[in-house]
Amino acid sequence: MKENPLRALWREDRTAVNAWLTIPSGHSAEVMANQGWDSVTVDTQHGLIHFDTALECLRAISTTNAVPMARVPWNEPGIIMKLLDSGALGIICPMINTPDEAAELVSYCRFAHDGGARSFGPTRALMSVGPDYVKDSKNLVLVIGMIETQQALENVESIAATPGLDGLYIGPGDLSLSLGLTPHQDSREPIMVEAQERILAAAKSNGLIAGIHNASGPYAREMGEKGFDLVTVSNDTRLLAAAAKAAITAARGEDGSNAADTGSRGGY
Amino acid sequence: MKENPLRALWREDRTAVNAWLTIPSGHSAEVMANQGWDSVTVDTQHGLIHFDTALECLRAISTTNAVPMARVPWNEPGIIMKLLDSGALGIICPMINTPDEAAELVSYCRFAHDGGARSFGPTRALMSVGPDYVKDSKNLVLVIGMIETQQALENVESIAATPGLDGLYIGPGDLSLSLGLTPHQDSREPIMVEAQERILAAAKSNGLIAGIHNASGPYAREMGEKGFDLVTVSNDTRLLAAAAKAAITAARGEDGSNAADTGSRGGY
Amino acid sequence: MKENPLRALWREDRTAVNAWLTIPSGHSAEVMANQGWDSVTVDTQHGLIHFDTALECLRAISTTNAVPMARVPWNEPGIIMKLLDSGALGIICPMINTPDEAAELVSYCRFAHDGGARSFGPTRALMSVGPDYVKDSKNLVLVIGMIETQQALENVESIAATPGLDGLYIGPGDLSLSLGLTPHQDSREPIMVEAQERILAAAKSNGLIAGIHNASGPYAREMGEKGFDLVTVSNDTRLLAAAAKAAITAARGEDGSNAADTGSRGGY
Amino acid sequence: MKENPLRALWREDRTAVNAWLTIPSGHSAEVMANQGWDSVTVDTQHGLIHFDTALECLRAISTTNAVPMARVPWNEPGIIMKLLDSGALGIICPMINTPDEAAELVSYCRFAHDGGARSFGPTRALMSVGPDYVKDSKNLVLVIGMIETQQALENVESIAATPGLDGLYIGPGDLSLSLGLTPHQDSREPIMVEAQERILAAAKSNGLIAGIHNASGPYAREMGEKGFDLVTVSNDTRLLAAAAKAAITAARGEDGSNAADTGSRGGY
Amino acid sequence: MKENPLRALWREDRTAVNAWLTIPSGHSAEVMANQGWDSVTVDTQHGLIHFDTALECLRAISTTNAVPMARVPWNEPGIIMKLLDSGALGIICPMINTPDEAAELVSYCRFAHDGGARSFGPTRALMSVGPDYVKDSKNLVLVIGMIETQQALENVESIAATPGLDGLYIGPGDLSLSLGLTPHQDSREPIMVEAQERILAAAKSNGLIAGIHNASGPYAREMGEKGFDLVTVSNDTRLLAAAAKAAITAARGEDGSNAADTGSRGGY
Amino acid sequence: MKENPLRALWREDRTAVNAWLTIPSGHSAEVMANQGWDSVTVDTQHGLIHFDTALECLRAISTTNAVPMARVPWNEPGIIMKLLDSGALGIICPMINTPDEAAELVSYCRFAHDGGARSFGPTRALMSVGPDYVKDSKNLVLVIGMIETQQALENVESIAATPGLDGLYIGPGDLSLSLGLTPHQDSREPIMVEAQERILAAAKSNGLIAGIHNASGPYAREMGEKGFDLVTVSNDTRLLAAAAKAAITAARGEDGSNAADTGSRGGY
Repeated sequence: MKENPLRALWREDRTAVNAWLTIPSGHSAEVMANQGWDSVTVDTQHGLIHFDTALECLRAISTTNAVPMARVPWNEPGIIMKLLDSGALGIICPMINTPDEAAELVSYCRFAHDGGARSFGPTRALMSVGPDYVKDSKNLVLVIGMIETQQALENVESIAATPGLDGLYIGPGDLSLSLGLTPHQDSREPIMVEAQERILAAAKSNGLIAGIHNASGPYAREMGEKGFDLVTVSNDTRLLAAAAKAAITAARGEDGSNAADTGSRGGY
Repeated sequence: MKENPLRALWREDRTAVNAWLTIPSGHSAEVMANQGWDSVTVDTQHGLIHFDTALECLRAISTTNAVPMARVPWNEPGIIMKLLDSGALGIICPMINTPDEAAELVSYCRFAHDGGARSFGPTRALMSVGPDYVKDSKNLVLVIGMIETQQALENVESIAATPGLDGLYIGPGDLSLSLGLTPHQDSREPIMVEAQERILAAAKSNGLIAGIHNASGPYAREMGEKGFDLVTVSNDTRLLAAAAKAAITAARGEDGSNAADTGSRGGY
Repeated sequence: MKENPLRALWREDRTAVNAWLTIPSGHSAEVMANQGWDSVTVDTQHGLIHFDTALECLRAISTTNAVPMARVPWNEPGIIMKLLDSGALGIICPMINTPDEAAELVSYCRFAHDGGARSFGPTRALMSVGPDYVKDSKNLVLVIGMIETQQALENVESIAATPGLDGLYIGPGDLSLSLGLTPHQDSREPIMVEAQERILAAAKSNGLIAGIHNASGPYAREMGEKGFDLVTVSNDTRLLAAAAKAAITAARGEDGSNAADTGSRGGY
Repeated sequence: MKENPLRALWREDRTAVNAWLTIPSGHSAEVMANQGWDSVTVDTQHGLIHFDTALECLRAISTTNAVPMARVPWNEPGIIMKLLDSGALGIICPMINTPDEAAELVSYCRFAHDGGARSFGPTRALMSVGPDYVKDSKNLVLVIGMIETQQALENVESIAATPGLDGLYIGPGDLSLSLGLTPHQDSREPIMVEAQERILAAAKSNGLIAGIHNASGPYAREMGEKGFDLVTVSNDTRLLAAAAKAAITAARGEDGSNAADTGSRGGY
Repeated sequence: MKENPLRALWREDRTAVNAWLTIPSGHSAEVMANQGWDSVTVDTQHGLIHFDTALECLRAISTTNAVPMARVPWNEPGIIMKLLDSGALGIICPMINTPDEAAELVSYCRFAHDGGARSFGPTRALMSVGPDYVKDSKNLVLVIGMIETQQALENVESIAATPGLDGLYIGPGDLSLSLGLTPHQDSREPIMVEAQERILAAAKSNGLIAGIHNASGPYAREMGEKGFDLVTVSNDTRLLAAAAKAAITAARGEDGSNAADTGSRGGY
Repeated sequence: MKENPLRALWREDRTAVNAWLTIPSGHSAEVMANQGWDSVTVDTQHGLIHFDTALECLRAISTTNAVPMARVPWNEPGIIMKLLDSGALGIICPMINTPDEAAELVSYCRFAHDGGARSFGPTRALMSVGPDYVKDSKNLVLVIGMIETQQALENVESIAATPGLDGLYIGPGDLSLSLGLTPHQDSREPIMVEAQERILAAAKSNGLIAGIHNASGPYAREMGEKGFDLVTVSNDTRLLAAAAKAAITAARGEDGSNAADTGSRGGY
């Protein structure tokens, strides 16, 4: 029987460290995938990536051992099934606010023999996984709903009880915004810490894995130690921007006196 | 009169800090260009970028104040002129080993009224710069030859004397390889330090600017202080890879005991 | 009056032999379209094709006489109308399980003067068909619903009675899965044969055309002889894979003793 | 506080002249954006543009002062939010027929702190606008519903009263079709003139801006003088086709006796 | 025997009216090709088009009767042969300044059985033209050298005598620049008029066709009446820009008082 | 020490069965690469593939064990080095007619420490192979010249003696054309058989491998048995076209009476 390699890792109580792709390029995807992440998620929601470039990214991930996953733009069946057919072995879906929405999501990701409504035709997945893909699809494909609004938080225990759901994933930006804060990640605010713990508990008591998006490695590590199973660190756009800024600062000296004027445009 | 903004910066004896693009994506180019570099060079030689994606990158740079430049694959007129027509305001050409090669390069970059053989039809440059582009082309377009072989080093004084050439640029990887070393950047080896100083001196005594590729910000700063006018720091692929590796290490803890096995493939 | 060329063929009781595109490339689409198919369908559901590459495929088909059609990812108005505006002269929609879903599909494909909700702006279709496209749109555009679940089978007679629907198309993979079998095409199992006959009968008694997806040419021919009007044979991905495998076997000799190890990865 | 530059223009009672992009190319988008329009709208409905090419177009517009906007394919949250994240500062949504649909549209375009359901992650908008984007998002992003069916016309006053809606935009093609006419723009027919006036009045009495699509510059000017705030003139495909046809006619002479036969195909 | 359709037109002493593509998009190419030109040339020199997008343009032209041709970036065998293999039935090569360069160009365009060095493998041309392509290649493929420098003008009679060359094409921009003028088209300056007449005469006395690039339809017509066989009118970028500017002016009124500020950037 | 996996295979006197890619798509490349070939060659000469799509194909091949190689458009340093940097582990270069041309080709493919002129910067190769790429480059990268003209045949022994060359590859199409025959593969004509044997002998007596392009599997097998080390079978375009034609014939019945008219165009 084939299964998603992350499941083996979780049976050993390890934390999966997950990458997040927002640059629409197979090359940057391949560079990211080669750095040692346990899984790499192609973000087709806030990433600048849609189907055609997501396909290139999924193919690039397949040159490595990292598990390919996708965040979908919305709980819409067309694009979810296309990304599954393209070889994503995990679907992270934004804005799952009610048990009904969770059930719909599960249904889009499972074939009829697993009780779902997913249409059959896994063109690339059959090739990247092999002929067992159909039979073992339930073990291979992770279905993960994002908890990122006040409404979702209030419903989190019933959402977690949705049959066929594999995990909950916290989107701290939206959740903090929805809870009346300015949007941010790596929060120490009690209201957010409490919310995160409630979501973690709801997942654990229903046998689901719990994931969370983090801005930094140390916070991600802390979350892993707290019991989160899937911790994402930043994304490629942010990692690249921060590294470039640091390079410029170092090249110019710390006082930044030679800084380019980037506040206005007028170049070529 | 319009001129390349880097010329004004150099008149004030400042050092231009230059970015290097190797990812074939307009988005990553825009992210890089927004970080505050004085110029951004699209590398169509060792970068994974050819004309179609170079055009996207040049357009992305034009959303900022950074000066768009291109490294060309080789001293070949077809692609050099295409990149100029697309709005590159500087051409960095690899492997200029003799004065004749330098003269050919200059000729490909200058219109007839400036004594060159460049064909007229600056489709995008006329739009990004404006109608003065033709008249002021010589002031706008920088022509820079790379000194990166033993032969080039031996010829560097005569190369630097080529009429119409604007600068010399050191490629430390090739130069170190050609001098019998393992290829590397940010060198402290006497043979390389001496070579770099000879190239710098040849540029300065001929009124040319001198540039050098660096692996790190601090070394780039040192080169600026030594008199180099154009210092590149790393490239987008390397910055991204290093930032990702650091994020993973932080998320896993320093002992790396949770490291993914990236030595072999076998995933999906 | 202009009409879909397949309608003339069907008036003569001929069977349209249909190609199925899953490779996202205008070149492979042009190669396929040149082989003599009556129609060529761009599969944007299980094919690795989304809008941008579907447009290239539709343009490639227009270099030949084959009728361009599209399978859509889902019964969603945005993408259906975009593919129609791009010149698809037939829409094959998956998972039409109820008369209401069939009515929605028809509505997305018909302009107001034909009783539908399709928005007006057939940018490419006006060019590929000509100014009559608007007036004759109903005759030009085929609306075909896929019958591929147990629920759809149970509703097939009422679905077939949907005003404005042009045809039913059997997806044997999903249908067999939904009926409790392993997913397959070219079935001889009584439960599938019976289902196919029921769908064919429902189509014919409502004046609709009937189509079916087949794995092989001989089975497709058999279906044509049984009365199916539109028979698809395999798809470009499968045809290419099978032809390549046969070429390798022939080049290596039948015992396959020189076979490459493709079960695991580890290459470059 | 940052705001959409069109708002300042409207406070001075000026009319915004808007471009409409249908060609899927960053280059043609840049050419269009450089001609002096107040805003440039990427049409992802009837234009041959989907997300990947829309992103290139939005980036191209950002090389100029023109305000980037997008027409979306349908009132679907996934693609609407993706285009906003990509930097569109206005969403024009087709087929808003009821107040409920208008409220849904508003909800997709506004963050939680503005009472909406838009998910947080404005990857490119944060870069093109700057860090104030989140706080000032309501002032930056225009939400505009299209009134283009008889049903919408009957509901126009209640649609215009939707909290958070910024404007109404007339699609004359669909509206004329829905009112029983042949589809056309720049109408002088009383039924259309009256409908346009009713929509304009509904907008003005609710403090909304009013926009209209026009086929020609003079009609657009007339609409501006009538009180419309946003007037679009034709689109890139039509402008290019008309200019090409005029060039051919001039090159051949007015009798057209040297005309190529374009009625049938058969070339290479 | 198959031949280039332009040859038949020229036997009747008609003038071919030629389009010039610079936008890298199959859609704009298809729009252009549908307007009635006798031939459509994909400009891979000053156009923003390289091989991948040239292929899309050539395919788009093949949906019409117009003859597909290509201007190549330079007299380089790699790209010339690739464009021929892709179905271009004419090669217009810039900067042919000597008989030797003309002979090299001819050699790159002709197969061994026609005395040339072109490598055999016309992958797309065999499909778009048919199996006769190889045998009739010399009649199908036009080889045209551009005369656009003072040196070329001085050599024009000997260049025109090159065996296998089919035509001369005047590039007025480069030619005027090379003759010491500001670069322009549609010239009335005696030095240019005289040069154009000399080139026309050299072509005619060697049985070659003569072509010329024009900025406007009326000048193109005049050139046709003077005896030029192939007259190009402007290009897609310029046609689109001019049409857009005219639309804006009309929409704003002639005084332009509502003009957007396009001189500087600072938008989004 | 790392080496090209084909070298191990050849030490065991086995024949490498090689695929040939001409479709510009990462998906079709991945499909091909998964069928069990020993190596897969991206044809950037007669294939419809240039750098950007070649990169996608090379990445797709890296999801499997097949060895990635590239046929280059011409003996031009720019594109050859770019394809090597992108991870091609073999370069097959057309039209090597003299020992000088062979020496130039070798020089473009070897770094300075191996006596060549290849510029250092193997951006993707360092990632796909690992850090040993530089040191072991000579063992990893195969340099193969095509013998495909009468001149090359006459020089074959001296070409084969070129230091650093790894192999000779026969292009039967061009070779037959150059020898005065109609272009074809899988030849039984004495003049071709003799030429092939001479080339094979020249390779073997110089310790080089010998390769040949074949139209069919059985002929390829025969060549392997004759001593050829690398046998290519057809290409993806031809395999797909033949498989499609066979499918249509089977679906229509052998008499082909239902055949579509593909001789002329006129569709949509």
